[in-house]
Amino acid sequence: MQLAFTAAELVALLQPRAKRGATTEVIRGIAALVGAQSGDLSFLGNSKYKNEVKATAASVVLLPADYAGEPKPNQLFLLVDNPSVALARFCSHLEQQLWPRPAPGVHASAHVAPGASVAASATIGPLCIVEDGAVVGERTHLQAQVFVGRGARIGEDCWLMPGAMVAAECVLGNRVRLQPGVIIGGDGFGYELVAGRHERVPQVGTVVVENDVEIGANSTIDRARFGRTVIGEGTKVDNLVQVGHNVVIGKHCIICGQAGISGSTTLEDYVVLGGQVGLAGHLTIGRGAQVGAQAGVPSDLAPGTTVRGTPSLPLMLEQRLTVLRNRLPELFRRVDAIEEMLKKPSATP
Amino acid sequence: MQLAFTAAELVALLQPRAKRGATTEVIRGIAALVGAQSGDLSFLGNSKYKNEVKATAASVVLLPADYAGEPKPNQLFLLVDNPSVALARFCSHLEQQLWPRPAPGVHASAHVAPGASVAASATIGPLCIVEDGAVVGERTHLQAQVFVGRGARIGEDCWLMPGAMVAAECVLGNRVRLQPGVIIGGDGFGYELVAGRHERVPQVGTVVVENDVEIGANSTIDRARFGRTVIGEGTKVDNLVQVGHNVVIGKHCIICGQAGISGSTTLEDYVVLGGQVGLAGHLTIGRGAQVGAQAGVPSDLAPGTTVRGTPSLPLMLEQRLTVLRNRLPELFRRVDAIEEMLKKPSATP
Amino acid sequence: MQLAFTAAELVALLQPRAKRGATTEVIRGIAALVGAQSGDLSFLGNSKYKNEVKATAASVVLLPADYAGEPKPNQLFLLVDNPSVALARFCSHLEQQLWPRPAPGVHASAHVAPGASVAASATIGPLCIVEDGAVVGERTHLQAQVFVGRGARIGEDCWLMPGAMVAAECVLGNRVRLQPGVIIGGDGFGYELVAGRHERVPQVGTVVVENDVEIGANSTIDRARFGRTVIGEGTKVDNLVQVGHNVVIGKHCIICGQAGISGSTTLEDYVVLGGQVGLAGHLTIGRGAQVGAQAGVPSDLAPGTTVRGTPSLPLMLEQRLTVLRNRLPELFRRVDAIEEMLKKPSATP
Repeated sequence: MQLAFTAAELVALLQPRAKRGATTEVIRGIAALVGAQSGDLSFLGNSKYKNEVKATAASVVLLPADYAGEPKPNQLFLLVDNPSVALARFCSHLEQQLWPRPAPGVHASAHVAPGASVAASATIGPLCIVEDGAVVGERTHLQAQVFVGRGARIGEDCWLMPGAMVAAECVLGNRVRLQPGVIIGGDGFGYELVAGRHERVPQVGTVVVENDVEIGANSTIDRARFGRTVIGEGTKVDNLVQVGHNVVIGKHCIICGQAGISGSTTLEDYVVLGGQVGLAGHLTIGRGAQVGAQAGVPSDLAPGTTVRGTPSLPLMLEQRLTVLRNRLPELFRRVDAIEEMLKKPSATP
Repeated sequence: MQLAFTAAELVALLQPRAKRGATTEVIRGIAALVGAQSGDLSFLGNSKYKNEVKATAASVVLLPADYAGEPKPNQLFLLVDNPSVALARFCSHLEQQLWPRPAPGVHASAHVAPGASVAASATIGPLCIVEDGAVVGERTHLQAQVFVGRGARIGEDCWLMPGAMVAAECVLGNRVRLQPGVIIGGDGFGYELVAGRHERVPQVGTVVVENDVEIGANSTIDRARFGRTVIGEGTKVDNLVQVGHNVVIGKHCIICGQAGISGSTTLEDYVVLGGQVGLAGHLTIGRGAQVGAQAGVPSDLAPGTTVRGTPSLPLMLEQRLTVLRNRLPELFRRVDAIEEMLKKPSATP
Repeated sequence: MQLAFTAAELVALLQPRAKRGATTEVIRGIAALVGAQSGDLSFLGNSKYKNEVKATAASVVLLPADYAGEPKPNQLFLLVDNPSVALARFCSHLEQQLWPRPAPGVHASAHVAPGASVAASATIGPLCIVEDGAVVGERTHLQAQVFVGRGARIGEDCWLMPGAMVAAECVLGNRVRLQPGVIIGGDGFGYELVAGRHERVPQVGTVVVENDVEIGANSTIDRARFGRTVIGEGTKVDNLVQVGHNVVIGKHCIICGQAGISGSTTLEDYVVLGGQVGLAGHLTIGRGAQVGAQAGVPSDLAPGTTVRGTPSLPLMLEQRLTVLRNRLPELFRRVDAIEEMLKKPSATP
């Protein structure tokens, strides 16, 4: 991001309660207090790092209104109600620069079928394909090289990044964001062994992605055998995640990178899966359950459970077993010693 | 899928042995007996769920010919030889609607090199690229945004979904299905450390994908260093699977999601790898071996072996060790007690 | 690869010190000594396989200059200083045939924004997109269907394979190779739970990929929250790897397939991660540390450490614990026996 903000521009943008000091530097980066250099904007997000303010080389520092210290020469303090919120506001401003809202319309190189319905305020970027019967809602942005299959329906204010694909008949709600390379609606993985060959079980269901869902780069969400694979409202999915057919993910879940969810498993609301977690098929993972990174879950989890390990166990138990496993050398030595003692007549008085 | 079938259309399609009852509902979905609603088609696939038939709200139910009960008002029973087979027939019919066979021909926006050979009955969809010397067989369908590199050969009746890629000189047999985003023929991962830098080892082999193979979304199959990486006939590969260079997978294997196979490993026929399994390089996995989800296999497996865990062990042993690990707290307490007892003069009579 | 080399062409290409024997076969493949067939080129890369030379059916064999044996009828020995080096030279030659350097220029179907800067010697292949403000350096090759976002900068002599994407403002150095489907600069995965909903934390940083980096098919490298995600010079990344936001990978690291690195973790130079490794966030992995396949690393690693397992432990300790875990059945039996003995009056004299 080609940042370049003068101190005056920052003040205009952030409208601090007060200023202290001044700088002639143009701000070209954002950095933590430690590590910031001249030309950087920094911030005190947590009062426990207060002492780092004195040492920081940042040219502009966002500070809480009650911060007492004085800036160095050529350093500007901006006193605000909440430095983290002020920084977030600045980042949102940057984000709009990074990803400016494109003008509505269909790029000349895009292929929109005559039978597709694209809202007048939507943007269909270069080399996108929208097949027959597909619907693209108001202000939705298909950035580039996006594929929307026959009869698929994309809601309002969605953003599908380059190379994202929504296969036939799948449905996205409103404000859905698909990172590059996301695939919605590949076939579920279902076969029956017939006379030594795996015969394909038809996969004629769809995928429904509810409002405010975000899905990370190159993740894959399979269509249902029949019925629907569902990603619930507000759920966030990281990169390279696999979601099998007929999985139902509840609302406001967090699914970290490279996790895999086998077919027909249900996650209730507010479930959190760590990175590289694997869930077996046909499970129910209760509301608010938390599964630690790399865990493998073979059976249902009650609401609110926190588990670790493969096969997964409750967190406290798994931690205790890990500690005891680390003490196995000691345990073997102790048993050796007991056996030795019991061999000798003198072992017991 | 925009299902809409009247009862009469279903009867015409499924030709039941007998009907019982009637419904005026239009069928718009398929669902299990429990969970089905008015407007759904359901089925009794397994007689142990017989009692669920009485309670189901489905408008049409597929039942075995000897089923005795009576339908509810506005409910239609169709008595057939095998409800599961009848359902599969219906789903195949749906699938043809979902993915109608496109007309042959090359879309105006596709780029087919003059030196490529595309069968007259093949379909090359929008924004596909077929490079010089590539061959596309009869009735094969490159759906959209597919890339076929120089000299690659695609057999007959294949279906390459949006964004699938087959790099130069790689070969697909007949009836191969590549889900979206599959990459056939990326470079193998081979380097030699020379004077502190990793020098690339040229990867000039190919990938051969035999007849009736299906590969899941965003999976990657690397080309051989030299020679061939092979996916054997009838093998089915799920999403986000990594297959390293010079791997040889036998016939009719099942490779579940996010599994990874390191370079030069051989799988004999009918091997099954669970999700997120990792295989080390240069191994031989014997015919019919089964590797449980998340297992890590460091050495050869004999034919017919079933293993679990990392490093993997025979299933029964791994299960036993898991049980004993869970009893470690008890074991430590027991050894504590023994030591305590041996300390006291009164411990032994 | 459609290999077809006569013996005379091979001699011209490899310029051996001496020849022994002759063959009329056309060379159409490369294979190891064992397994090679008539029409194959083979080589003795390691003197311990010397005995395999006598038995090989290869038509041409590359051998060290001091090799004493005689060829079979219709077999040609080429005596060279270093057979492995000679083979590598031959493979490089093949690679140039496989991937010939394309003519410079912009394909008619590519979309290069007027405000983009493309070097005269660069090649922009079919259906590529180069957005406004992007820079593509000398001799760089965007093969096909590549996306380069607004303000991104691609150095010299890079090769971006089909479907690779470099999002807005991200930077590649020189001689960077991206395999198909690589995504540079998807959003980092950062949310804050506000009133029961996950609010997105803006991700306005970039990704910097330094010189001589290679990244495998469908891998994903997320942009920083702010600042930069960095892949250091000469580092090689395999397929389906996930690199989180603000990760800093040092120089000359090796990251094997399906590994995942959580946000803000730093790898110093020459780190090696095995396949399917997972690293927690905010760690420092010391120079030259080696992490075994499938390990899960929850905390910092000192330079030079070798670890295995989840949670990871030093290699020797983890191996010892694995051995002791396998002996748990024995240990339980021994403790049973001790307890039994202590119960009996006769147990102790």
